[in-house]
Amino acid sequence: MEYTFAERVRNLSGNAIREIFKVLSDKEMISFAGGMPAAQCLPAEKVKQYSGELLTENPVKMLQYGETEGYMPLRESFLRYVKNVGIEGYTVDNALIVSGGQQGIDLMFKTFCEKGDKILVQNPTYLAVLHIARTYQLNPVGFDCGEDGVDVDDLEKKIKEHRPKLVYVVPNFSNPTGKTLRLETRKKIVEIAEKYDVVVIEDDPYGRIRYAGEHLPSIKSFDKDGHVVYITSTSKTIAPALRVGLTVADERIIRKMAICKQAVDVQTVTLAQAVVERFISTGEIDRGIARSLPIYKEKAEIMLAALDKYMPESFVHTVPEGGLFIWGEFTDGTSAKAKFREALDNKVAYVSGNDFFADGSGDNTMRLNFSNATPEQIETGVKRLSAIFTK
Amino acid sequence: MEYTFAERVRNLSGNAIREIFKVLSDKEMISFAGGMPAAQCLPAEKVKQYSGELLTENPVKMLQYGETEGYMPLRESFLRYVKNVGIEGYTVDNALIVSGGQQGIDLMFKTFCEKGDKILVQNPTYLAVLHIARTYQLNPVGFDCGEDGVDVDDLEKKIKEHRPKLVYVVPNFSNPTGKTLRLETRKKIVEIAEKYDVVVIEDDPYGRIRYAGEHLPSIKSFDKDGHVVYITSTSKTIAPALRVGLTVADERIIRKMAICKQAVDVQTVTLAQAVVERFISTGEIDRGIARSLPIYKEKAEIMLAALDKYMPESFVHTVPEGGLFIWGEFTDGTSAKAKFREALDNKVAYVSGNDFFADGSGDNTMRLNFSNATPEQIETGVKRLSAIFTK
Repeated sequence: MEYTFAERVRNLSGNAIREIFKVLSDKEMISFAGGMPAAQCLPAEKVKQYSGELLTENPVKMLQYGETEGYMPLRESFLRYVKNVGIEGYTVDNALIVSGGQQGIDLMFKTFCEKGDKILVQNPTYLAVLHIARTYQLNPVGFDCGEDGVDVDDLEKKIKEHRPKLVYVVPNFSNPTGKTLRLETRKKIVEIAEKYDVVVIEDDPYGRIRYAGEHLPSIKSFDKDGHVVYITSTSKTIAPALRVGLTVADERIIRKMAICKQAVDVQTVTLAQAVVERFISTGEIDRGIARSLPIYKEKAEIMLAALDKYMPESFVHTVPEGGLFIWGEFTDGTSAKAKFREALDNKVAYVSGNDFFADGSGDNTMRLNFSNATPEQIETGVKRLSAIFTK
Repeated sequence: MEYTFAERVRNLSGNAIREIFKVLSDKEMISFAGGMPAAQCLPAEKVKQYSGELLTENPVKMLQYGETEGYMPLRESFLRYVKNVGIEGYTVDNALIVSGGQQGIDLMFKTFCEKGDKILVQNPTYLAVLHIARTYQLNPVGFDCGEDGVDVDDLEKKIKEHRPKLVYVVPNFSNPTGKTLRLETRKKIVEIAEKYDVVVIEDDPYGRIRYAGEHLPSIKSFDKDGHVVYITSTSKTIAPALRVGLTVADERIIRKMAICKQAVDVQTVTLAQAVVERFISTGEIDRGIARSLPIYKEKAEIMLAALDKYMPESFVHTVPEGGLFIWGEFTDGTSAKAKFREALDNKVAYVSGNDFFADGSGDNTMRLNFSNATPEQIETGVKRLSAIFTK
């Protein structure tokens, strides 16, 4: 039969990273796409130990239906953990466990946005947010990133101009640019949110992955009246395929998000939640991060050196202090988008930068992930890129 | 600050079962609400064994990002498994792994329905479907269940009258009534779907939980041209908190659902998928079901006997051949809804039947779950109910 799909999906193509994912099963492919943690950082032994313990100690709890809001010990432990970023004074009524940080974003859009609403995002921003926005038929508008990730003057101007329902910001090692907000910018974002009474989503999956410089308090830590919703994830600090994240927000928001979560997946996998709880309460999450950081730092340095050595002069790039990405730009306008298919044919993958821009610009940019490839693959992959872009 | 929530959630209260869930932490409470498998049927030892093996054999695959469409070995095994219900001739492009069967329903609504659209549901139907429908601002219309779960004449009449986007049917041990469609009804539903070119969601979480009578082929097994979308779950056959289900549909539908799934949760937890795969490929899923059936049969019989012994004469009920529920009705119009608070105060919980009716009727009905309470609790709980309803 011929189907008539809903308007929201009729012309919707897949999320670029997810679509690239499918070609990565090719063993020859070197991928700088995705945002995958290094394979050697994935703590399989500990996951095995903790899940074995949990299924022995509390078998029914692990397998029976549980609360939509989340496994209570995890809500409590996670709230203690985010004191690291200055988030204090909240109770479990302010905490919702989500099936990965991305579900937190999706539930926020579901809770707040009508079809046609505007949301403000960094330009460029995390491309999945643009994809989620399309599924709600929203209009994302980009504001300038400035030096540290948010040009606060442009943010204020765009709020006045567009009256957005939500503002979405990645504060640390922003995806894709790797930029990190200065302390003053964080405070100023809260001031602006209060002045215009707008809700800010602070999405912080990368904050703990810092291998240079100092940790900074979250935007949420300066929030006095429920203007900031903090979302974090364990995809980059424990393992992505466990799909466990946290949302901290005013309890009226958490309540609405939980009612939406009842509909979409009933609850997050309890065993995954309990394993994450054990990582947090034993401190293993931090020991794991401490072991990962030198690995990421080294990989970043190898990629930076290879880019400087092999890529053409017109290619400029960021030097990240954390996170998983280097952001590159061709100053002569060379299109990374146009070369993408050729790159795949030559067995190297990246994400074409235009996918991160709300306004569709950025053809001359690319996001390079350095965490998943081996040092040898990084060297070889950058050589392959260089061969394509120096022709 | 004062929030302006989206219209879809502004007046949305929680799913009745999920809300009841929160009071069940009271140790004195005997719950006939929920649809929880018996605790002794939850296979914690096998989940521990399989997850340990999988994390040893294939640690990176278990923890790294995986495909949105699902863990390939599970898509293959699950497709073989549904040959049990006559679903044959499909490839992995027709299979989407979902985070519980409920996500399959949610993604179908997201893929097909606009705000204001009508969908047809059994009257009464699974209450979560009414809840999901509210989050998309749909108008569910009930058709008569007749003797076996679908009055096909009324279904056809309602399709002509309302031109629904989707029809939702639970074919086996329907929630809440426990009714099972006869073979002729299944064939007739496909005929009607073809005649009016409408898509039918066949939601089958309970089909394997049959302790009397014969298994029947699925509605989907009679589908020739993509009119039926089959959804099943392992919540009742393995464990609910693993959140693993399957959707089988035309590949154009699967593609749209997968693009939506990219947005909502990226992927289902890989370890949970791989554990389920092992249950299926080793045959342990069927051995577990075979062990569970006598337990469910006995509990059902204990509840039926207690209801006949203690409840007032005006209370009539179904005698199920499978599934987890008994459906009761007060022929004198006594309101189960009105007595619900009193029941909770007296430490017994059920689901008031009106929550299952698209038209809000059914105050004089109730759904009783017998699978989760112990035999002693069933006896005691029914006595408590009787004390309330014979006053």
